[in-house]
Amino acid sequence: METIKSHIVYGGTLRYLKHDSATTGTSMTLSVFVPAGEGPFPVLIWLSGLTCTEDNFTTKAGAYKAAAKHGVIIVAPDTSPRGEGVADDPAYDMGQGAGFYIDATQAPWTPHFRMESYVVGELIALIDAGFPTTGTRSVFGHSMGGHGALTLALRHPELFRSVSAFAPISSPTRCPWGEKAFSAYLGADRAAWAGHDAALLIEGGAATGVYDDILVDQGEADPFLVEQLKPELLKAAAEKAGQGLTLRMQPGYDHSYFFMASFVDDHVAFHATRLKA
Amino acid sequence: METIKSHIVYGGTLRYLKHDSATTGTSMTLSVFVPAGEGPFPVLIWLSGLTCTEDNFTTKAGAYKAAAKHGVIIVAPDTSPRGEGVADDPAYDMGQGAGFYIDATQAPWTPHFRMESYVVGELIALIDAGFPTTGTRSVFGHSMGGHGALTLALRHPELFRSVSAFAPISSPTRCPWGEKAFSAYLGADRAAWAGHDAALLIEGGAATGVYDDILVDQGEADPFLVEQLKPELLKAAAEKAGQGLTLRMQPGYDHSYFFMASFVDDHVAFHATRLKA
Repeated sequence: METIKSHIVYGGTLRYLKHDSATTGTSMTLSVFVPAGEGPFPVLIWLSGLTCTEDNFTTKAGAYKAAAKHGVIIVAPDTSPRGEGVADDPAYDMGQGAGFYIDATQAPWTPHFRMESYVVGELIALIDAGFPTTGTRSVFGHSMGGHGALTLALRHPELFRSVSAFAPISSPTRCPWGEKAFSAYLGADRAAWAGHDAALLIEGGAATGVYDDILVDQGEADPFLVEQLKPELLKAAAEKAGQGLTLRMQPGYDHSYFFMASFVDDHVAFHATRLKA
Repeated sequence: METIKSHIVYGGTLRYLKHDSATTGTSMTLSVFVPAGEGPFPVLIWLSGLTCTEDNFTTKAGAYKAAAKHGVIIVAPDTSPRGEGVADDPAYDMGQGAGFYIDATQAPWTPHFRMESYVVGELIALIDAGFPTTGTRSVFGHSMGGHGALTLALRHPELFRSVSAFAPISSPTRCPWGEKAFSAYLGADRAAWAGHDAALLIEGGAATGVYDDILVDQGEADPFLVEQLKPELLKAAAEKAGQGLTLRMQPGYDHSYFFMASFVDDHVAFHATRLKA
């Protein structure tokens, strides 16, 4: 891993890093915050939303104060492979910046678009090898990255201690963003989609008994709430499956990092409690 | 004032605004955070550094949690007039984005570059007229904006209750950034410069007895520390004049918003205490 730049923040060290990924076949970028001290520290992985790189969360979320306080490493990867030779689409919700944390099975997205394998395999290994971690980790994210956090945690419960999300795409098989992305990346056969739909996974009991609670914050003034995000589907699925899930509808809040910054301390504390249990 | 966009953050309302300025003869942009509740609230004005707009502080400083807690309005104006017909320079440290919070006396910077008059006159009046303020205010800033905060507070002590700075240009008459900007905006005659040099103003007793303390944070790993910022000149001037000044050298910190975010709570608290005294 190559360090692009490094900053001290809240007494810890924040690095922007780049590495050649065997999983995506591209150079991948990320940021890693490590608290002051020797460690070892548990790891909290952040997955960003559409159009984001690793930089949006890193500069705007205001999460490092809580991470420093609780002694948690925070890792924020980019949202897709990028660069020349990597497939792309002019739309903001497809291609580079829109990896959806799944492994594409359809051309032209194969072989680079393998964000699920990248996060749960190479990224986790890289962090555990390169930083003073306890080997335990949790995951959270926003919008497309909220979908990513939920589905990766539900599909790989052995890897994570806890999961939370801000304004997640709750059921990508039942909203335009998800239907468009899954059609392109996974193909027209909807049978392949269900395993990447957080609400359907919860309803199917994918992680019942694994996660005591799943924390979800959703702004009531979020312009994507009704058509794209549909947190009520998560809540209904959790009730049906007996999965603990706390959905907090936040009056007045929108889809921006200002919303996330307002509640990020709660999420870091939620994970810190479970990472240290 | 026209509202460009609005977000709820930490329960308060953050607005990006635009208005036609009689002082600069241009459209000017700013952000205003107003805490939840009826108010009235005291005002804390933030002045940004070179290349910034109102957006850098607003998205990166993480100041609104403390502002919400203490019940303080935070106003962040742009750093210069902008637009077609406004003089500019290809260098990052001159022209648009580099107003230096002074009123230019030299062509081509007259008549638009009047950032001192804009901040202490039109901006303050606009905020007091448009928001539930107590009519009391303080000022802080970063780098060029640290110079701005210090010099405006020292030149107009009747307007402000307190002043603080992150990595300020402490003595623009004795560093390349300041010498270049003052030569261009104020002309070759250095006699006109001294009144806009924070260290010289403090040394001359400009506000001795007005401000009980001036808080300055400076990163020891700031690449501009030795050549441009020179906080030791502030400290020496304050000691000479009997002006209270707390200079905190912060080991490892650089010139970025990560540095400022790490200590911004202290600054908001410093001002809140004095605004409510």
